[in-house]
Amino acid sequence: MTSSSGPTRRKVLGTAAAGALGVGLASVPTAASAGQRERVRVVILLYDGFTALDAVGPYEALCRVPGVRVVMVGRKAGPVRTDTGQLALTAERAMADVPHADVLLIPGGGNRGTIATMNDSSVLAWVRRIHQHSAWTTSVCTGALVLGSAGLLRGVPATTYWASRPYLAEKFGAVITPGRFVESGKIITAAGVSAGIDMGLHLAARLSDDKVGQAMQLAIEYDPKPPYDTGSPGKADEATKRLALELVADAAV
Amino acid sequence: MTSSSGPTRRKVLGTAAAGALGVGLASVPTAASAGQRERVRVVILLYDGFTALDAVGPYEALCRVPGVRVVMVGRKAGPVRTDTGQLALTAERAMADVPHADVLLIPGGGNRGTIATMNDSSVLAWVRRIHQHSAWTTSVCTGALVLGSAGLLRGVPATTYWASRPYLAEKFGAVITPGRFVESGKIITAAGVSAGIDMGLHLAARLSDDKVGQAMQLAIEYDPKPPYDTGSPGKADEATKRLALELVADAAV
Repeated sequence: MTSSSGPTRRKVLGTAAAGALGVGLASVPTAASAGQRERVRVVILLYDGFTALDAVGPYEALCRVPGVRVVMVGRKAGPVRTDTGQLALTAERAMADVPHADVLLIPGGGNRGTIATMNDSSVLAWVRRIHQHSAWTTSVCTGALVLGSAGLLRGVPATTYWASRPYLAEKFGAVITPGRFVESGKIITAAGVSAGIDMGLHLAARLSDDKVGQAMQLAIEYDPKPPYDTGSPGKADEATKRLALELVADAAV
Repeated sequence: MTSSSGPTRRKVLGTAAAGALGVGLASVPTAASAGQRERVRVVILLYDGFTALDAVGPYEALCRVPGVRVVMVGRKAGPVRTDTGQLALTAERAMADVPHADVLLIPGGGNRGTIATMNDSSVLAWVRRIHQHSAWTTSVCTGALVLGSAGLLRGVPATTYWASRPYLAEKFGAVITPGRFVESGKIITAAGVSAGIDMGLHLAARLSDDKVGQAMQLAIEYDPKPPYDTGSPGKADEATKRLALELVADAAV
């Protein structure tokens, strides 16, 4: 820990918490922060064809909560490509090496990636195993279909991507329930893509308290002003819905 | 392109655009879509210590806009780690191999990463070079400090992370202006972290039209319902501001 360049660095992020900002410059965690970092493990499953924001929204809301450590996990460790093929995130650990999670999060993906994951018996077995001892088992967007395929949503109030709601109910017996996210016991399912941010901040508070939830909302300056009022199917006309699904399909690899 | 498993795949994302969804299953781009993909190149600079959501929010809003291709660029190609050290994204290309961008986007980062980038003369020279011929030069969060350090914001209406606004004005002569993002000629600067989503959707419309912007907002189901009303400094009390900056600093590596 050094404060030699503290004043300059402090100015960059403002002076409101100058003392605290000095602390943040440590490259080696202190004993206290290292201990804290291992208190709650959030595991996010990355699979070929996942949707980036489904994973990164909750990551950003949770990764600074005291005691929380977010771990990206894949079928194997290494880069995992998203549904559009234009981006890859690194899985830090292989599924087989991660036997436990306090919070499990399954992001959604494009058709190809979601279906492959729904039909992958090793992933489903791992999800069920983690779920047995998790504090929270969660999904964003079509990640709920993976939880459903693992048999975790039968009779459970839940949500998913707007266009996939009928399928989640018919195929896996979930009870579709309105909301940006739906909390049913220890299972929380979020609506499509960006809804993971709302769920992530909710979880941030659940894993600590409202003060931390409020501070994390400010930390990511989440005071949204969407340019349109078409962000949910109830607000969008049929042409917009059709175009949205076409754009998603056309960009998929 | 195959439709052999079309019906199942279509059901996953609903039936509203069943025909279009079949198209999205192609693993080899058609001549038309391949041509479209090269019309507009969005380049996002990844640097050691960047903030993931600053890059991924705009990526998700833009990557499905017809004709747009998002390219993550780093000092060199390969994984680039975020400000918390808990996540890495892959830079697809090295800066030196990318001489042109239609849209340049600089994400923000933690103190260490932002300062290193502000002081990296090769990055600044590259930013200035790209800016000369870009259609749009943009930033999210403290990415504005990099644009400022490159000399692009003197006298320019702009914004940045809430806690960094005084510094951006004092140090680089930007005219701090309210808003989730500020458009000044071809320069657009967004406020902190999640504001990149609002700016991304705005840009999606600028690169196409309102219909596509509206559809992209629905495609990422962006109908936000933040759990608190503390997402901007004007709405948060002093204790929340202090805690937010402490959490950011404590999680930084």
